Amino acid sequence: MRRMPAEFEKHAGTILVWPVREGSWPHKGIDAQKTFTELANIISKSETLFMCCNPSDLDHVKNIFKDNPNIRVIAITTNDAWARDIGPTFVKENNIIKGVDWKFNAWGGDFDGLYKDYEDDDRFASSFCNSQGYSTIDAHPFILEGGSIHVDGEGTLITTETCLLSKGRNSNLSRKEIESQLKNYLGVSKIIWLPGGIVGDETNEHVDNICCFSKPGEVIMSWTDDENDPQHEICVKNLEVLNSTPDAKGRKINVIKLPLPANPVVIEEEDLKGFVFEKGEDEREVGEKLAASYANFYIANDAVLLPQFEDPNDKVAVDIISSLFPDRQVYPIKARSIIVGGGNIHCITQQIPYGGNTK
Amino acid sequence: MRRMPAEFEKHAGTILVWPVREGSWPHKGIDAQKTFTELANIISKSETLFMCCNPSDLDHVKNIFKDNPNIRVIAITTNDAWARDIGPTFVKENNIIKGVDWKFNAWGGDFDGLYKDYEDDDRFASSFCNSQGYSTIDAHPFILEGGSIHVDGEGTLITTETCLLSKGRNSNLSRKEIESQLKNYLGVSKIIWLPGGIVGDETNEHVDNICCFSKPGEVIMSWTDDENDPQHEICVKNLEVLNSTPDAKGRKINVIKLPLPANPVVIEEEDLKGFVFEKGEDEREVGEKLAASYANFYIANDAVLLPQFEDPNDKVAVDIISSLFPDRQVYPIKARSIIVGGGNIHCITQQIPYGGNTK
Repeated sequence: MRRMPAEFEKHAGTILVWPVREGSWPHKGIDAQKTFTELANIISKSETLFMCCNPSDLDHVKNIFKDNPNIRVIAITTNDAWARDIGPTFVKENNIIKGVDWKFNAWGGDFDGLYKDYEDDDRFASSFCNSQGYSTIDAHPFILEGGSIHVDGEGTLITTETCLLSKGRNSNLSRKEIESQLKNYLGVSKIIWLPGGIVGDETNEHVDNICCFSKPGEVIMSWTDDENDPQHEICVKNLEVLNSTPDAKGRKINVIKLPLPANPVVIEEEDLKGFVFEKGEDEREVGEKLAASYANFYIANDAVLLPQFEDPNDKVAVDIISSLFPDRQVYPIKARSIIVGGGNIHCITQQIPYGGNTK
Repeated sequence: MRRMPAEFEKHAGTILVWPVREGSWPHKGIDAQKTFTELANIISKSETLFMCCNPSDLDHVKNIFKDNPNIRVIAITTNDAWARDIGPTFVKENNIIKGVDWKFNAWGGDFDGLYKDYEDDDRFASSFCNSQGYSTIDAHPFILEGGSIHVDGEGTLITTETCLLSKGRNSNLSRKEIESQLKNYLGVSKIIWLPGGIVGDETNEHVDNICCFSKPGEVIMSWTDDENDPQHEICVKNLEVLNSTPDAKGRKINVIKLPLPANPVVIEEEDLKGFVFEKGEDEREVGEKLAASYANFYIANDAVLLPQFEDPNDKVAVDIISSLFPDRQVYPIKARSIIVGGGNIHCITQQIPYGGNTK
């Protein structure tokens, strides 16, 4: 019996990957590295944090975390730093934790992928599992990123049509065939298809940027009341789906609306100066609107790490999330340095569920 | 402030290495593998067990332990399977666990080493630490095996002169210089030098085959009253040292005598048929007496794994050890399959102390 535990279940640890790619993280990643460090230090208060880095950065990164007993720095070569999308998706089978190793093609491969060389990223899940002695379940050639799915741990999976039915992924498979892959690898029984995610999200609108489960039967969804915002229509359609689709246990899902930032977060002149793009890599431009959303938070054992955008809605988001996670401390994190890379806090994390039965 | 925690302190885990070397484990290691499996399953009841194996054995070994949630099988190439001697010696520095990476030369190198190629064994400590994200403290070119030292966790280290002053190890260093290496790398302040260990022990009489700490201030020591046994004189001399040498805290050490097996354990014709020796490797012969001792047990979080030799003293040893470890279950383990390899239960284990402060 295979089951993918939900993010809010107990973790053995969390994976992060040290950000250095100059096409993602401007100015040699210095701001992103500060934020990753802040996140690692918070997460590691209540679970083991695996900070993976390229072998050439090992000494440097080890030195940064040398005083933290719960951070393990390990060398694994990657192309970028999105642990959610390149990491294993962990499932539990008879109390054994195993990592599902999806094919990764940089969010669309030749069709609309974001960079050209992604072989190291594709190998990351198996490399990590092998280093830690977790067995893998090889899902190749099925293409999936961890950020494109959310589960409640009780049989329900939410995803977006824009992503999982995109041409750059498993275009040879029908919706039904994709469903059966998800059911097989993750042990889920009900797939809820949202029409879309956040407008402009270059992952083909990953579900983890627009909504997530706070507990079984309850989904937090990004929302805007502004009918002139193209996001509004997507939010309304998603809400209709969630309101009309019972979950795997037959429950009607309770939807909590989470406002989007009031003001757009855009690429500035100063950011642009700091990028170094490779051939074939998706480039940024000044004024480009980034897919900022508060829903892209991460749930650690004792904490919720919530992105903040120096926006009037920052505090509203903190209040809503705090009320939904009364047993965890909510940490507001200035997330601009991550979102310029194209994702957010949830995208750079990957939880390892607790599986053993030792102390 | 560096400190080597004692074996009886809380562990994060234990390392074993899967036995396959045909010069050590007769009949392709089949009996040894059964016993290693038994030990791994017991130890993993109360802590994570890292079973390291050669990459070519990975699938096979993973399959053996596939139903145990607390065993992690990881691929690291080694020359043999003595985790105590080739593994890192873990110390704690400001709550951070680090692995001391000694030089390993197969118990004596060109002088009286037991096999010729030991490069993979020498690399094992750093490979293991790197895979798990533990920092290492590189002690090369200082030569040491973990089985040649025992500590009480409070500043005292016990070793044997036969081993640490042997010609095949650090013959360029004086006793005082060796002491300062141990003090530096392990954070100990008092070295107690026993004259010798078990007669015929091919490790140059490792301390872990003759005695160990049951708690600070208390040492369990193998003993024979038989004055015709050459072992008797060594035991008497060791006892004199222990009785006359206060520990690091100034305490007089309480010595508990543990009988040696009443009957010799020897290599049989049947064993000999199963070995395949390499050039330059120490060979066995029929009738060769093996250095059997009950002191070569392993202390896990909730268990003590005690070697048994189908000997009248087996039960005596179980009773003594049970009385000294009232909070742990004592598991009597038939150890013949390990001792034909030249060591015993303690020699094939290495503890990783608990260092983090997460749940």
